[in-house]
Formats: sequence, structure tokens, C-alpha cells
Amino acid sequence: MKLGINTYGKNAINLSKIIRHADHHEFRQISVSVQLTGDFDAVHTHGDNSTVLPTDTQKNTVYALAKEHFTGTIEEFGLHLAHFFVTRNPQISQARISIEEHSWQRMQFDGQAHTHAFTGGSTEKRTTVVTQNAEGPVVLSGLKDLLLLKTTDSGFENFIQDEYTVLKETADRILATQCEATWEYTATALDFEALFQQIRTSLLRTFSEHKSLSVQHTLYSIGEKILQEQEVVKEVSLIMPNKHHIPFNLEQFGLENKNEIFVATDAPFGYITGTVVRD
Amino acid sequence: MKLGINTYGKNAINLSKIIRHADHHEFRQISVSVQLTGDFDAVHTHGDNSTVLPTDTQKNTVYALAKEHFTGTIEEFGLHLAHFFVTRNPQISQARISIEEHSWQRMQFDGQAHTHAFTGGSTEKRTTVVTQNAEGPVVLSGLKDLLLLKTTDSGFENFIQDEYTVLKETADRILATQCEATWEYTATALDFEALFQQIRTSLLRTFSEHKSLSVQHTLYSIGEKILQEQEVVKEVSLIMPNKHHIPFNLEQFGLENKNEIFVATDAPFGYITGTVVRD
Amino acid sequence: MKLGINTYGKNAINLSKIIRHADHHEFRQISVSVQLTGDFDAVHTHGDNSTVLPTDTQKNTVYALAKEHFTGTIEEFGLHLAHFFVTRNPQISQARISIEEHSWQRMQFDGQAHTHAFTGGSTEKRTTVVTQNAEGPVVLSGLKDLLLLKTTDSGFENFIQDEYTVLKETADRILATQCEATWEYTATALDFEALFQQIRTSLLRTFSEHKSLSVQHTLYSIGEKILQEQEVVKEVSLIMPNKHHIPFNLEQFGLENKNEIFVATDAPFGYITGTVVRD
Amino acid sequence: MKLGINTYGKNAINLSKIIRHADHHEFRQISVSVQLTGDFDAVHTHGDNSTVLPTDTQKNTVYALAKEHFTGTIEEFGLHLAHFFVTRNPQISQARISIEEHSWQRMQFDGQAHTHAFTGGSTEKRTTVVTQNAEGPVVLSGLKDLLLLKTTDSGFENFIQDEYTVLKETADRILATQCEATWEYTATALDFEALFQQIRTSLLRTFSEHKSLSVQHTLYSIGEKILQEQEVVKEVSLIMPNKHHIPFNLEQFGLENKNEIFVATDAPFGYITGTVVRD
Repeated sequence: MKLGINTYGKNAINLSKIIRHADHHEFRQISVSVQLTGDFDAVHTHGDNSTVLPTDTQKNTVYALAKEHFTGTIEEFGLHLAHFFVTRNPQISQARISIEEHSWQRMQFDGQAHTHAFTGGSTEKRTTVVTQNAEGPVVLSGLKDLLLLKTTDSGFENFIQDEYTVLKETADRILATQCEATWEYTATALDFEALFQQIRTSLLRTFSEHKSLSVQHTLYSIGEKILQEQEVVKEVSLIMPNKHHIPFNLEQFGLENKNEIFVATDAPFGYITGTVVRD
Repeated sequence: MKLGINTYGKNAINLSKIIRHADHHEFRQISVSVQLTGDFDAVHTHGDNSTVLPTDTQKNTVYALAKEHFTGTIEEFGLHLAHFFVTRNPQISQARISIEEHSWQRMQFDGQAHTHAFTGGSTEKRTTVVTQNAEGPVVLSGLKDLLLLKTTDSGFENFIQDEYTVLKETADRILATQCEATWEYTATALDFEALFQQIRTSLLRTFSEHKSLSVQHTLYSIGEKILQEQEVVKEVSLIMPNKHHIPFNLEQFGLENKNEIFVATDAPFGYITGTVVRD
Repeated sequence: MKLGINTYGKNAINLSKIIRHADHHEFRQISVSVQLTGDFDAVHTHGDNSTVLPTDTQKNTVYALAKEHFTGTIEEFGLHLAHFFVTRNPQISQARISIEEHSWQRMQFDGQAHTHAFTGGSTEKRTTVVTQNAEGPVVLSGLKDLLLLKTTDSGFENFIQDEYTVLKETADRILATQCEATWEYTATALDFEALFQQIRTSLLRTFSEHKSLSVQHTLYSIGEKILQEQEVVKEVSLIMPNKHHIPFNLEQFGLENKNEIFVATDAPFGYITGTVVRD
Repeated sequence: MKLGINTYGKNAINLSKIIRHADHHEFRQISVSVQLTGDFDAVHTHGDNSTVLPTDTQKNTVYALAKEHFTGTIEEFGLHLAHFFVTRNPQISQARISIEEHSWQRMQFDGQAHTHAFTGGSTEKRTTVVTQNAEGPVVLSGLKDLLLLKTTDSGFENFIQDEYTVLKETADRILATQCEATWEYTATALDFEALFQQIRTSLLRTFSEHKSLSVQHTLYSIGEKILQEQEVVKEVSLIMPNKHHIPFNLEQFGLENKNEIFVATDAPFGYITGTVVRD
């Protein structure tokens, strides 16, 4: 027997930071996960811990480095952390830093932005995964748990009919999804903030404007648009579960359901994933 | 032995509705729970179901009535449902309709509101509980899972010191909470939409402006403000768990933590509740 | 304006303990919540914290007292904690200690109990709520998240039929629930361990043997049985949501469903609660 | 632009089944997910649905086939489903069937097994993933969310010390994990039931007996043991998050903590994964 693929690290390092400016505060909240890969055979086979950087130390390192180095985007902080772990530890061949950022919105009153009060609570998280090994760092950025819904311009027709088909074809249905998007950059010295905002807007705009013939059709359309607009993006991966809203059968009560009353269900759900790449 | 307090009904009736206007769509998503109380002794003691309106029928009724009657606020729909169940079923002495509404935001592009595409995903829900019995209907409105945070203007000092005291006094800490607010109206023919917006703004504004000496201090201040501003509100109840952000000990690594790097924790958490009433 | 009902404390104090015996270890894991009530008007209205025992101190107290006093049942530990908080703090009129215990099962190999290895992971928790005020302590015990299911001896017939009725009457259905039971004791010097085991067995046995005509019918039967058997129990409250398993329509595919294939659903669900009391 | 890796299907198909024997009932509850891969470029790029087997139809197929074919292990049902989807649909190059089984335990009274009443509620699920493509079917089996804990025979020492090291070395700590194990079989005509029980017992026994020098050390030991005992297992993958139980600092209150009182934490957590393979 021998050790195959393996990794270890600290997950769910929940860190928040106040960045104090002269006339206002920024507030940032992230969850960092560190995963290290390397020559750890003896750790597993003989309990030899001499090469183990404890996960507790990894956590402390994240908090300590956040003071000076978490000042901008999560991508920049991830790059710093990955570089730090790999260059300080020869036994580590790869560090993978995954960061999720929770969104906090500055409160607004009478059109004025408040200096230090915020509302949170969006399910949407901004994400990055920075992986650094001998070939250098690679940055993936993305978002997850973004709830999208449109009430028309979506249909699903002309699919296979067999003896287990019950679903009715429809030219007008609700399309809803809890979108997760990830895109890989071709470089690491980028304006990650501007790129994120542009790509997120592009995603929303394509979702809203697309005449959807299926979830797959919309998924591809979003990925294609992002690649067309952003030269520094190598490929786009999307996970778009189909959050079904099913017309409720009002006819059984003598009422007509003109595509207006729906049952929102959690399970089962369609699960659609795809990656759009360059030719 | 005999039957004491009891109730039954259908929970988590997840309903969505498209309201179609000439040039745009509204989209609404709610979760309705029905709880009925009445003379159900024989149901329990003898398995006599002749007085039981099945929970499946309650669910169907909610969907059927939504077509015509869920056109405005959740309070108005709740009032209609409570009245319907109580007046049609003499054995039911009280109907309690609880509704949570999920928020969906219309997408905006270049300052233009989209006609039929929405983003969702806020944890914040708008709530109502309508209870109708022989004394007539009572409406409670509220919100829940509203995440609030301020980075300053909050302290906690001068508390009891005993042999188990470890917490340091501080004049400047993060104050964060997952707020649940409920207020009771003195009438049922009200502009529930306008009132909700006013009360929610008042809550946010007080939270942001208050010089907080404790969670309790802020809680009371919010309740007091709402009662001062809204004559039709009888009392305000608030649940404000203390979502701790604890300064991370950077000193052990030779760094100074100028109130900037924090550990965000989920458990344990302070749990503060209070009701503010009129004299 | 003035302060109405209010309370505060620390929730989710997650504590585990190894009790070391000569030849084996016990392992216990609990979650404790402390809620204090008293004269806290000035805390709310003026930010006067001089009467506040911080929730952080409450937490420390629970850990410190666990060393000597958490050696038996959660009821005994709860009684000790409630007494401690009330008698040391004149401003506290009532302490409410709520404890949930997670179950860990000692591993067994070849009929032998292991001395120090355990499996966990049951959703079922054992619970207690001890409330102490000027009238002395009151102990409620219970369990929650106990999943129960029977494949027959359960029906639902002869209920009200109206224009929204779709549900078919059935003499043979699956009965499943996620049971929460709470019972109030008439005394505090009891063998809480033996009583819990007897009452839990009685609950399971009644559920399994009862010819159920409705969830309500089974609920009452369980409460009645516990009161008949245990003189020291004053009343029994049960929450028994109906975890529906709905026959799947196989007929549409030319197959017969002889009450064998079901869709297990989470929402919506029937929600049945009741208290059985002595005459 | 072009379509890269993609897949679609129905997830969370929650199905329960009563298997009726002459003198007792079996009850089974599973959640099935279907993921299909194939030539679906036109679906994405042109909205051509002519090759799409709708996820709703996939769901119906699972329920319909369960009547006749879900009579034994989840592995056998998975093999049947994967074969069915691939052989009926030339455009599908691969079907991946993932099944989780919820455990239900038959109630016991006075040493007698009840014929039709069950308790559920374990977090532990038995799992399988059956993948069928042109190279034939492959079966992975496993379990997840199995909570394991030992109160001694576990240490963590001799790890790297750097300027961010705070963790103290210890020769005696609690080892706890929420174990996920997956193993790949080299064949498909196996007694999956017997194998599962043997492998699960082996996992538990190794966990309990191993003198653990780290989570990695125990992980490898478990994988090695399974491979030694089971010739039909090709490799074993384990995910063993470190569910920390951290000694509470009682010394600050003048008490000694003889490794007895712990804080159970959820975040952050160590995350350890590894695969053990044959030479």
C-alpha cells in the first residue's frame, strides 16, 4: 500500500477587518481555507510530523498577514498567502487558498452614505481560488449563491418524449437559479475589482436579455459573452441548478391558472453545469 | 387525562406569484403557515376526524385564494386567509396565519429597471402573523434575519466583575446582530406597505446613529423610536443576538491590533430580547 | 415608553467533558443556553451596565462549574446552574437554563464495549429546561429531533370534504414524524436518568403499537400513556410534524403502486402540537 | 468559443419504499442524483432540445424502476439505473448515478424486533456512485457524516515550530472527525451488503485501536487496513475533518483542567484528505 493523492489544511478561517479611513470605515468579512499538498508520505505512514505545518499555525498566519496584506481584493490577499506558504516551506509543492467574501452594504439615508453602519445578509458571496505550485500562481475568481429569476423569455420545448415523459412543453416559464460562476484568469497582475464588477454585470445582463430555450442555452450564452468581453479570461464554468417554480393546478378548483400561481420547490432539482472555453 | 393546549395546520406552504402588468411583471415569493385552534378533543381522544379540515386542504385553499387575494401586502393576504378559515368552520375558534416574504430585487442596468428579471438571495424576510378569533383579527408585522453591523459608536463597560470575568471593558467595539423585529398594530385597515418601509428605515437609522452602551441599550432605543413615530403601533419586540467579532491576539506575534483584525464567531452568542411598550 | 418583557444571556455554549474512570472513559457533549430575567430597566433606558453579568462571564461560569458539577444528568447540572445564577445575583429574578445533550454511543466489537471510542451523529438530542425564580426551580425534560416512522397501522379517513379537498382517504399510510417531547416534573429530587429512559421507551412503544387514526390521535395516546405510568410527570407536550411520504403515481406509467413507492417531501408539512394534562 | 466539460441531470430525488414480507416490513429511504454526459453541444449553442432527456423524465424513471429494481443494495439499483440511461440513449456517453441511503433502525422491545416501526435520524449515510460509459460500469461505495471520537490514544507532537506557532504539543488529546469514506471496487458482481458491513467495521475498529500520532496517521492506517482485508477494493479515499475539542482554560479561575473540560468548536476546522492505493 502507499499514499496517493492527499492534502490538508485549515478551513473556515472566519476573519473580519475594519479599514479605517479619515472620514469613513470599510468593513470586510471573509472566510479563508488553506489546503497544502507536498511530500507528506512519512506523516501518514509513520506518524512523522516533522514536515507538518499545523493547521492551527496556518490559521494564525492568515490572521497575522491580514493586518498588512488584506487591504484590497481577495485575489491579491490569496496570492500573497499562497506565495507565503509555498516559498517558506520546501516540503510544500502546492498551496491552494480559497476565499469567500460576504457582502456588506453601506447604509444610505436621504441619499447619503453612512460612514460606519452596514447591512449584510446576502447569500451571494464573491470567491477566489489561488493555487500556487512550481508553475507559478493561477487565479480563479467567481461568485456563488447568486439567486437569479426571470418571469418570462424562458421556455423548454421539443425535448425527447418517452414512456416516462410527464412534463408539458412550455414556451413561457419561470427561469430561476442559484448561480455559481468561476472564471480563470490568464494573468495575476490585474485589476481584479474592476474585472469582477464587469463580469458580474455581464452575467446579469445576459441572463436578463437572453431568450432562453433551456437552462443550458442560457448557461452557454453567459459564458460566451464573458469570454467575448474579457480577453484575460481563459474559460468560464457555471453551475446553474434549476430552482423549479411549478404551476399549481388551480383547474381542479374551477379556477384558471394563467401562469400566475406557482409552487416553489427545493427538491428534486435540475442540476446543470458547463464550461465555456476558447476555440 | 385530558387534552390541554393544542393546534394543528400546514407549515411551509411555498408559493410564488407573477403579477402581470402591461409593461412589467411583479414577482412575489412567500411561505405561508396555517395553525388552527378549536374544539378538537374528540380528534385526539377518539380518532374522530369529522371536524378536521386536513392540512392538505389548508394548503390547497392558500393556493386557490392567492389567485384573487394575494395582490398586495402579506398582511392583507393574511387577514383574508384568517377570516376565511374562521368564518367557514365553526369548530375553529382561532386561525393563525404566519407569512414570510422573500425579497426579490428588480435588476437595474444603466439606471433602467428591468421589466421581468430579478435578483434574490437576501436573508432578510418580511413577516406577518395574523391571528383571528372571537375578538377579531390582530396583525403583527415584522422582519427577520436582517444583518446589521457598525464598526464604531458601540462600547460595553462598567459591567459586573466577579471571579469568572475575563471580558475586557471596551469603549469601541463592533456591534453586529441578526435582527428580528415584530410590532403589533392597533388596527387592521392600514397602509401596511408604507408603515413597513417607515418602520424599517427608522430601525436602520436608529441602529446607525445610536451611541451604543450595550445591545440592550440599542434595542430599547430602536423600540422607543418606532413607538414615538408610529401611533398605530402598540408595542415593539426585538430579538438581537450579539454576533461577536472578537479582536484577534496579534500581540503574540509582535504585531499591534489597532481594533482592525477580528475573529467572526457563530457560537456561543449573546442572545438579547426585549419588548418596548407604551406607558 | 417603557421596557416590557425582556431577557438576555449566552446561547450555544458548546461544552464537552471526559469523565475518567479506572477502566473506561465516559464522553459527554452538551450545548447550554443561559437566559436571565430581572430588573434591567436602567440597562436598556440609560445604558447603565452596573447590574449586567456579561454573557461572556455566564459562559465562563458554565465551563468552570462543569468541572465539579456536570457529573450526572443534564437536569442536575441545570439545577445547579440556575441556583448559582439566581442566588449570587439579587437583580436576577429568574434564570432559565436550557441544555441539549448530543448522544455518543460506545463502540462495540465482538460483543465487547470499547473503553474510549465512540460513534455520534444521531439527530436525537436529550433536553432539559430548568427555570428558577422566587417560587423555586421547575424542571422540564424532553427529547427532540427523534425520527419515528411506521409503515402500517396508520390511516386518515372521515375528515371534512369541501371544494378544496384533494387528499384521498386512506386506511393504510406511512406515519412519520420528527418528534419533540417535553414533560414537566412535579419535583426536583428525582432519578432523572431512569425516568428519561422509561418515558422514552414508553413513547416509542406507544407510537409502534397504536392503531393511528391521525397524528393527533397518536400524539394524545403517547401523552396519556406517559401520564398514566409516571406520577411525577405533571403534563406532557408533544410536537409531531407530519413528515409526508406520498405515494408516487406509477399508474401513469402502466404500473401499479401497491403502497410501496413514495416521494419523501420536506415542505409543506403538517404541524401538530398538543399538551396532555391531568384532569 | 465552444462548450467544454458539461453535465446535467436531476438531483435530490427523494424516494422511500416499503418492501412487504409476510411477517414484517422493510423500509428504505434514499436520495438519488442522476448526471448525464454526452453530445449536448447543440443544446447549449442553439437551444436544440431534441437530444435532451428532461430531468423531470429522469426523476420519473427512477421512481418507475424502483418498483421492480430497488430490492437490494443501492449499488445494484445504481448499476441498473446507469445501464438503463446509457443503453436507451445513444447521445449519452456516460451516466453517473449517485445514491445516499438514510438509515432506519427497526425498533426493539424486550429483545424483540418490531415488525413495522422504525427510528431514524442518524447523520451517517451509506453512499454509492455508479458511473457507466463505453468502458463499462464502475462502482464506488462509501459512507459519509459518520461521527467518530476517541478520548485518548491520540496525540500531536514534533511538528514545525515557527513564529506563528501557538498550538501546544500534546500526547493525549480528543480525536474527533466527521468521516467520509469512499472505496472503488474492481468488479460489479459482488456481495455489496457483506462488503459494506465488513469495511465499515474495519474502519471503526482501526479508528478505535490505532495509536494516533496525527489525523493523517489514522487516516492512512484505516485505508491500509481496508486494502489489506479486501482484495476487491482498488483504493480507498478518506475525508477526515478535525472536529476540534479544545481544552478550556480553567487555570484562569484557579482550577486545574486535567484534560476533562473542552470547548467543542465548528470553525475553523482542520481538513485532512487522502487516498490509499495499492503499490
